[in-house]
Amino acid sequence: MAEVKLHGFWPSPFLHRVIWALKIKGVDYEYIEEDLSNKSEQLLKYNPVYKKIPVLVHGGKPISESLIILEYIEETWPENPLLPTEPYEKAMARFWIQYGLDKAAVYRAILQATGGEEKEKAAKEFSEVLKTVEEKALGDKKFFGGDTINLVDITYGVVAYWFKNMQEVIGVEVLEPKSLPRLCRWAENFLQVPVIKENLPDRDKMLVYMRAMREKIVAAKLGN
Amino acid sequence: MAEVKLHGFWPSPFLHRVIWALKIKGVDYEYIEEDLSNKSEQLLKYNPVYKKIPVLVHGGKPISESLIILEYIEETWPENPLLPTEPYEKAMARFWIQYGLDKAAVYRAILQATGGEEKEKAAKEFSEVLKTVEEKALGDKKFFGGDTINLVDITYGVVAYWFKNMQEVIGVEVLEPKSLPRLCRWAENFLQVPVIKENLPDRDKMLVYMRAMREKIVAAKLGN
Repeated sequence: MAEVKLHGFWPSPFLHRVIWALKIKGVDYEYIEEDLSNKSEQLLKYNPVYKKIPVLVHGGKPISESLIILEYIEETWPENPLLPTEPYEKAMARFWIQYGLDKAAVYRAILQATGGEEKEKAAKEFSEVLKTVEEKALGDKKFFGGDTINLVDITYGVVAYWFKNMQEVIGVEVLEPKSLPRLCRWAENFLQVPVIKENLPDRDKMLVYMRAMREKIVAAKLGN
Repeated sequence: MAEVKLHGFWPSPFLHRVIWALKIKGVDYEYIEEDLSNKSEQLLKYNPVYKKIPVLVHGGKPISESLIILEYIEETWPENPLLPTEPYEKAMARFWIQYGLDKAAVYRAILQATGGEEKEKAAKEFSEVLKTVEEKALGDKKFFGGDTINLVDITYGVVAYWFKNMQEVIGVEVLEPKSLPRLCRWAENFLQVPVIKENLPDRDKMLVYMRAMREKIVAAKLGN
């Protein structure tokens, strides 16, 4: 098997998508931590378009963008499938994965909202996105993938862990059992899956990082 | 074979992506024109999330979002493949397709730019996007797919025909041989491929539509 390397930055949810998929597939890899304030020459060479992590390097060939990497992993290591094999079901899974990508701006807006009114507006919009996901994609299933997790679960993992913790830091309550009961139950179930639970950034360390990130955002806004 | 129906709106580049793929695969389908100012109950039922065309309905099951539909078509009708079979090459094709989706906001910005300065800024940004595509995705190949077109060509078809014509309407010159020689040659070659050439909205009719659309945008901006 060709050598697998993964360039990442420890608190990144996009990195963790890739880690989870590789672990589920049982693929051994070498992890390379990147300093995003001083990106390595390798990272810039491997991802000249976005200059971002994660980058998966397989047999010397780099692949960037987490969703593209996930599809590549699924095709290269078909064991423990992470997408339905039936084309229509697969299309539905991809639809919801793309929906998450499409709504990334709504997610970013809530991370960057500062004033009360701005926070409220962003929270409302993000809440509507999550409601759509809960009603139309998750429904009454345990996981998006049914009884076991698939790429849709992995993609929305950012909501289950990062956003769940970030809420405290921002001071909003969007993902809470009263308005999103099924999605909250999903988040709990998802974080209990051993491969997920065992491969998450440390919560305390991450909260410190998130608070520092928020302070920077708020300071930059006040400065402008 | 299960019945195939396609809901669309005649000038849409996203509709035409799907038409081209179906024609290349030799799939017969029934076309249903939607009135977007008065969307059919069927369209709203089939695409409750975005309420947009195109929607492909195969054996009664609806799929929306052009990129999701294209992947579905490729998997359901594997004849005349539109994606490389080798996983790394496939990942690269998907990377550039997703890049186009990621830069959709830059494309929309130029369509909506009005004042001179705004137009210039939007044109510069879109020009940089196209330069990246030309240098890193197309290179010296005839098509993105190599000697024949693939889903990357189909996805960027919006640039070859719609944007090429829209330039006149907006009054910008972004896609022109001096700055983007290889992409301009690609656009010409692409529009000469019989299945593309034979399945394009009428240019004159489209220019009338585009001018009306621009007038609305300009009027709405002046009104605000």
